[in-house]
Formats: sequence, C-alpha cells, structure tokens
Amino acid sequence: MTIPLLDPRPLSVINVGVDSFLASVREAGGTALDTEWRPPGDGDPALAWAVAMLAPDPADPQAPGSRIDRANALAVERIVSSQPVLVDVAPHAREVWPDLGRTLLHAGAPVAWDDMCGPMQGSMIGAVLYEGWAATPDEARGRLAKGEFPFAQCHDRGAVGPMSGIISASMPVFVVENRAHGNLAYTNMSEGIGRVLRFGANGPDVIARLKWIENTLAPTLRAAVKSAGGIDLKSIQAQALLMGDEAHSRNAAGTLQFLAAVSVALAKSPVEPQATYESLKFIADNSQFFLNLSMVSAKATMDAAHGIADSSVVTAIARNGRTTAVRVSALGPAWFQAPSDNPVGLFFPGFTQEMANPDLGDSAICETAGFGGFSLAASPALVQLVGGTVAQAVEYSREMADITVARNPGLTLPNLDFAGSPCGIDVRKVVDTGIRPVLTTGIAHREAGVGQIGAGIVRTPLACYTQALRALAATFDIR
Amino acid sequence: MTIPLLDPRPLSVINVGVDSFLASVREAGGTALDTEWRPPGDGDPALAWAVAMLAPDPADPQAPGSRIDRANALAVERIVSSQPVLVDVAPHAREVWPDLGRTLLHAGAPVAWDDMCGPMQGSMIGAVLYEGWAATPDEARGRLAKGEFPFAQCHDRGAVGPMSGIISASMPVFVVENRAHGNLAYTNMSEGIGRVLRFGANGPDVIARLKWIENTLAPTLRAAVKSAGGIDLKSIQAQALLMGDEAHSRNAAGTLQFLAAVSVALAKSPVEPQATYESLKFIADNSQFFLNLSMVSAKATMDAAHGIADSSVVTAIARNGRTTAVRVSALGPAWFQAPSDNPVGLFFPGFTQEMANPDLGDSAICETAGFGGFSLAASPALVQLVGGTVAQAVEYSREMADITVARNPGLTLPNLDFAGSPCGIDVRKVVDTGIRPVLTTGIAHREAGVGQIGAGIVRTPLACYTQALRALAATFDIR
Repeated sequence: MTIPLLDPRPLSVINVGVDSFLASVREAGGTALDTEWRPPGDGDPALAWAVAMLAPDPADPQAPGSRIDRANALAVERIVSSQPVLVDVAPHAREVWPDLGRTLLHAGAPVAWDDMCGPMQGSMIGAVLYEGWAATPDEARGRLAKGEFPFAQCHDRGAVGPMSGIISASMPVFVVENRAHGNLAYTNMSEGIGRVLRFGANGPDVIARLKWIENTLAPTLRAAVKSAGGIDLKSIQAQALLMGDEAHSRNAAGTLQFLAAVSVALAKSPVEPQATYESLKFIADNSQFFLNLSMVSAKATMDAAHGIADSSVVTAIARNGRTTAVRVSALGPAWFQAPSDNPVGLFFPGFTQEMANPDLGDSAICETAGFGGFSLAASPALVQLVGGTVAQAVEYSREMADITVARNPGLTLPNLDFAGSPCGIDVRKVVDTGIRPVLTTGIAHREAGVGQIGAGIVRTPLACYTQALRALAATFDIR
Repeated sequence: MTIPLLDPRPLSVINVGVDSFLASVREAGGTALDTEWRPPGDGDPALAWAVAMLAPDPADPQAPGSRIDRANALAVERIVSSQPVLVDVAPHAREVWPDLGRTLLHAGAPVAWDDMCGPMQGSMIGAVLYEGWAATPDEARGRLAKGEFPFAQCHDRGAVGPMSGIISASMPVFVVENRAHGNLAYTNMSEGIGRVLRFGANGPDVIARLKWIENTLAPTLRAAVKSAGGIDLKSIQAQALLMGDEAHSRNAAGTLQFLAAVSVALAKSPVEPQATYESLKFIADNSQFFLNLSMVSAKATMDAAHGIADSSVVTAIARNGRTTAVRVSALGPAWFQAPSDNPVGLFFPGFTQEMANPDLGDSAICETAGFGGFSLAASPALVQLVGGTVAQAVEYSREMADITVARNPGLTLPNLDFAGSPCGIDVRKVVDTGIRPVLTTGIAHREAGVGQIGAGIVRTPLACYTQALRALAATFDIR
C-alpha cells in the first residue's frame, strides 16, 4: 500500500515498534526513521515491577529511585567535570604494572582460550611471539592452549584496548591522568590499519611494527608529551565533535589535533630527526590514531564515576568477541553479559556480513562517556563509512538522550543546535524504554589476521541491562 | 496573528518575498527560513527582456543563451577539473613580479587614496613603513596622499589578499600552480589575529611580525613545500568540508591538515630547529592560517575558468571596503561594482554593528569556487561565530544551487547528503531570480588598526550582476 501524500510537505515519520509500516512510507518518498520500542522490562512483569519500584518518588527522598537519582547526578557530575590529560608514555606495560609478568590483557569480560574468537586467539599468539615467549605460532598456540599464560581483562588494570585489546609486558602504554579526580588510565598504541595485531594478525611484519612502536614511536611520543607538559585529551575531543568526528569510529580531526600538539612539542625537543619524521608520518597516515586516546580519555572519565553507591549509571561497555559486557557504577567489578550481536554496516570490497566477527573490543567505553553512537549527530561524514543517512545519524543522538542522565555541556553537537552529547547511560531507562545503547564500531573478519573488513553500527544486548537492573534491585531488597 | 497549529508536526516554512509573514510563524513556534525573491531583472523591464533573450533556446544551438550554456559548461568543467597545488614560497613578491617596484597591491577594484576605507589606508601606511620607504606613519601618510606609491589590484597580478589585501615588494608570497590548466596564483601569508596589517594596524609590533614572516616563516615553509614536493590544496579543502570548515570563515580543519603536511615535511628537511618550532607553533595557534591558502586555491581555480567567450560565470568577487566588484568569464578584466553592504553577524564583546567597515577583501574568491557561503551547510560550527541557526546555514547552500551552473562532485557537503558544493555563479540566474550570492566574512572595525570585531554573513549587491548582464547582452547586440 502506498500512502497518498495529501500534505504537500515531505513526509517524515518516526516509527515506533512494528516495522512493517516503514516500507510504505519509504515507497511514498518519505523519510522514515525506525526507533526501538519494547514494552517496559522487555515484557517481563517482574522486571517491569522492578523498574517501577526503582523510579524516583518525589514525596520520599529515601525511596530507592530517589537515592538512585541523587547518586546518578553525582556520577554525571564526575563525568562532566573530568579532565583527562595524557601525561606520559610508559616504555613498557611492566613499568606500570610490575606484577604483570606473563599475563596477557584483553578486551571485554573474561573468556577462556577455547572460547576466544579467531581474532583474539591470533592476537594472543602474536603477543607471545612479540614477547619472545615462543619461537613459532604453533608453539605459541600450544602453550596458550595449555594455559601457560594467564589472561586478564584490560578493564581490571584501568586500561582499555581496541578490538582484541591485547596488552603484554613489553608493550608501551599511554598514561592518562584525570586531573579533576586523580585517577589514572592506560591504553596501547594504534598500529594503523591492514594486517595488525588487534585484528589477530601475527606475522613477522606485525611483530616488526610492534617493535618499531616500542623502540621508536613510544620514546618519541614520550618526549613530546613531556615537552608539551601533557596533552589535554578532553579539549581535543570537544573540538573534534565540532569537526565531524564522533570520536570512536571517526577520529580524523582528533588525530590531526594530536599531531599538531606532538609536532610543535617535538620541534623544541631533542629527539633524533629520523625518529621524529617516522613518528609524525605514522600518525599523519592513520586517521584513527587518536581512537586509543579517545578510549583512554573515556576510561579515565568513567572510572571517576564508578563505585558510587546506588548509582545505576553504566561505567563500561566491553566486548570480547563473544559477549557484550556492562559494568554499573554501584555494582562493583561484576560484568553483566550477553552474546554480542553482529555489527551491521558497510563492508570493504570482497567482504560480506557472513564473514564478520561478533562485536569486539573495549572501544565501547567511548559511548559510555557520550562519544561514538551517542554523538553520531556530530559526524555526518561517518555515514559514508558505516552506511545509513545523515538524518539517521542525527536521530541516534536524539534517541540516546532518552536513556541517559544528562547532556555534557562541554561536548556539543552542532547538528543538534549545540546540545550537549548525551552521557551517563541509566540502566533503569534502558530497561524501561527498551532502547538499547548504540555503538559505532569497526568490523573484524572472524578469522584471525584478515583484519578490518568494514565498519558499522551495533546495538548492545538488552539482556546486559536487564541483568544489571535485577542486581541493582536486589541491593534494595526488591525482587 | 498566531497561526493555529492544526497539524501536530512542527511547522517549517520557507518564506519567499514579503517578510512580515515570518514573525507569526516564529511566534507559533515554527521554523521560518527567509529566502530572497525579487521580480526578474530586479523589476526593470529592459533587464527582464535581456534575461529572457539570454535564456537557452533548445531549438536553436546558435541562440545567445544556447551559446552561453555551452560556454558555462566549459567554465565549470575547468573549475571542477582544477588541481591547485602549493608549489613554492617566493621569498619576496619582487621575485615573482620583477616590475613591481613600489607598487602596493590591494584587495578589490581600484580605489583612490582619498576614497580608501580606514583599514586599507592603515595597511598602506604599514606597508610603506615595512618597506622602509618612510620613517614614520605621518611621513608615510603624506607620501601616500601625494601619490608617490602606485596602487594596483591583487587580482590583476593573479593574486588575492584577505581584508585590505596589501602585498608589497618585500613580502613573501605563496605560489600555487593549477596543475590541470598550468596557470599560477599568489597570496600573502596570514599574520594571525588581533593587531595585524590586513586590518590596518601598523605599529612596531605589526612590522616586527611581518619581518619574522619574511625572515623565518617564509623560508621554513619554502623548505617544507620543497621537501613535500608540493601540497595539494584541493584535497585539503575537500577533506575540510567533511570536517566542519566551509573554507572561508572557518579553516580549523584545513589549517590542521596543512600543519600535518608541513610538520612531516620539515621533519625530513634540514631547517634550523628554532625556526621549525616557531613556524609550527605560529600555524598551530592560528586556526585561520589556511584562509589565504584556500583563497589562492580558489583563485588558481577560477582564473582557469576566466576568459571563455560567451560565459556568464562569475570568476571573481572582491571588495575594496567601498565597493563589491565582480568579474565575469566572457567580459575580460572589467569590474562590475556597487557599494558594499555591511556584514551582519556576531560581534566580539564591546563592538557593535555601527563600528563595522563595509565588506572588505579578496576572500570572496572562495565563494566563486563554491566555498564559504556556498558551502555553509558543511560548517554548522561556524554558526557559533557568525550567528543564525544550523538550519539556516544548510539553507544557504541549497539556495546558492539556484544561481550556479553545477555542483562540484569533488567537494561534497555531508549535511546535504553529500551533494556537491554549488559552483559557477551564473549572472543570468542571479538577475533572473534576484537571489544574491552570499558570503561568509570577517568584520573589520572601520578605523584602521582596531582589527577584527566580529564575523558574519553578507549578500553581494544585485547591481553588480545587473551591470554584468547588460554588458553580456551587449556582446550579443541585445540592448
């Protein structure tokens, strides 16, 4: 059925719920945006009851919901007031964590060797080779399968890593201080695109590049950071949102700003010219270099909002290639997990949706701080990479405001007339509305080492939030 | 009267002509965009007749309008295929123009000393002091008034300059080659903001900075350009449109890209470290540094479209602080001029509209090539500087497509779903529709040396285009 256009103005429809209506609107030449709608509590009466019991009660400041509201206001105040600054580049992770030993840090929640996705297994093998703990990939695989190297999560060390997110003892790490709250956060360094460790590649070229990062890039950037007296990451992110980045899947402007800071700092620093040249060129050729820094900035920000009693604010979203896992401010180190969805987006020539690994990496920390899918309105240019229309990109940012506590006045979205980016995902609002937080993401091939095959959008599973809500309700003896 | 909102959707109105209707729409909470409308030929029957006689005739390929259409297609093909590349930095203007002598080049059409606006007179005095042709401002003023230094237009030397646009013999100039068509273009170097020559300041600090530009910045950038093998300006502009610049009043992304290219090139070039540091820092601290380069890129592009018989495409718009002047491809070096309007926009604290100088500078060359007001949809962030709403910014780009020949497929506007920027202003379309080309612009204080006091939007006078249309009609013996 085609809807007759009785009104001469272009038809703009926002669809809620059943989506069969959309096709006819689009047939009639109208713009149709699909939004998520599910019944409160995902149709589960007990959960709907819990949501209702956790709603604020204006008449009772001691009601659970009122206490949660106050705790969330504090969490968001900490997010908004955060001042993440890149203060150092540690030459090796073991200097940051002297007890790290042969532990291999990875993205997302804990996962056993046999359950790891292809890219993460490939990355683990690469890290073992890089460290010299095995001579061949086969030897590395065998020893990994026997459990000779402990695994741990980046997040439990105050760190984040994109894709498989591997950090091992000899890798250099960026050190970020949240100058407003005093906490530190860490991440590894971008290797660029193509065959890289974070997508599971582990050939000699990959190991050689990691050694160059360790021996050339890291000391050069350390000198730059020292010379600059620290590099303000939040300021870069705020400017980047005015320049077409959403600071997760697009970091072209953030990378250029970081490069500007580094190049000026190096010009007054006694670094060997060849190292300076190689380092600047490496960053200039990789428009996603700033991704790791955007992530660690978000991690330093969200850690400051973690551990607030009663707060239902999500402080981390992380994916290990199997599950998507969520942490909540009041609920300690527990992960609330569910199987990850596959991102939907655009694929590089020769690759298809069937080759895609389920959603992977710690980079969703960006969304918890208001970047990525939450700031998609800032990045119409990203539509060319991930698909969809600019109107849809803007609509994602509007929609995410329905499940967050506040807007960050320091991070403005030009296409929403400079409204602040929505931040502080409230577990209650997600479960109440059924609107699942949306992430922008790179798409990895499910086989180790093929690398990135596309980029897209993914919704995080509702089950993460329903589990978290039940756990939060339990802390108030609501069952 | 308030319009009752019978339809629940937000009211969005585009107003054509009489503007008293707008207030009531806005009162009712609707969005109202004002567009220009005037009767064809500005209400002049003879001009309307000329417009009709210059319209293409599908039945007669030799009809004037058919010939103009073919000529315009060629002009736009030259614009779209242009490849402006920064190929050198000439240490002094006199090396580019050995016959320059004591001639002072300025923005816009010819203007006598007594008729020059305050900022341009101040700039002239500064240039004479900088060259050492006078010892004091009073001496310089006296000798300028006596006509001791010839004036000429930047445009007649293939050059452009922002604001008063002064270029004198000792100033270094950027040299740009249009590699598709072989023509060269030139511009001076940005001095940053505040008290600067181009706004008419001429104190010792201004002269000292110009000497630093001559002795430090120019040779450093020359080394960088040589080391890089040229810097592709069009590629920078195309990326900048994806990053929130419109490449006239906002060049934050263009400047960062230029800085990236320069910093990488300098890292493998034997320039003295202190000069490198000072130069990189100077560019990094001035987000409009790329403006001059965006202008000269546009000049190199539009000169390639100039001089095509029968073409009604505007190849230059320039303002000398008194008049706005327009050149047309088929009509040689003639300027079609009318008194400039005052820009309307936002003013820095302490300054008001009454203090504004009429529109000034060669920078409107950007609009002729499709940047600035024509690409305003690319730059929602600019709204914070010039006023208005993001919707209005987008609407300007839509409107300018009504008076241009084509869209440039290499310069895309994300907020218009990646439509190309409108380029090739057709004098016939301007006179037919009454839609005047819109410019983004800095606003100068009308007194010399105060500097920039704001930024805004200005429409170019219709009389420029009506005069040009009459001259074009005359070439076809239409009167």
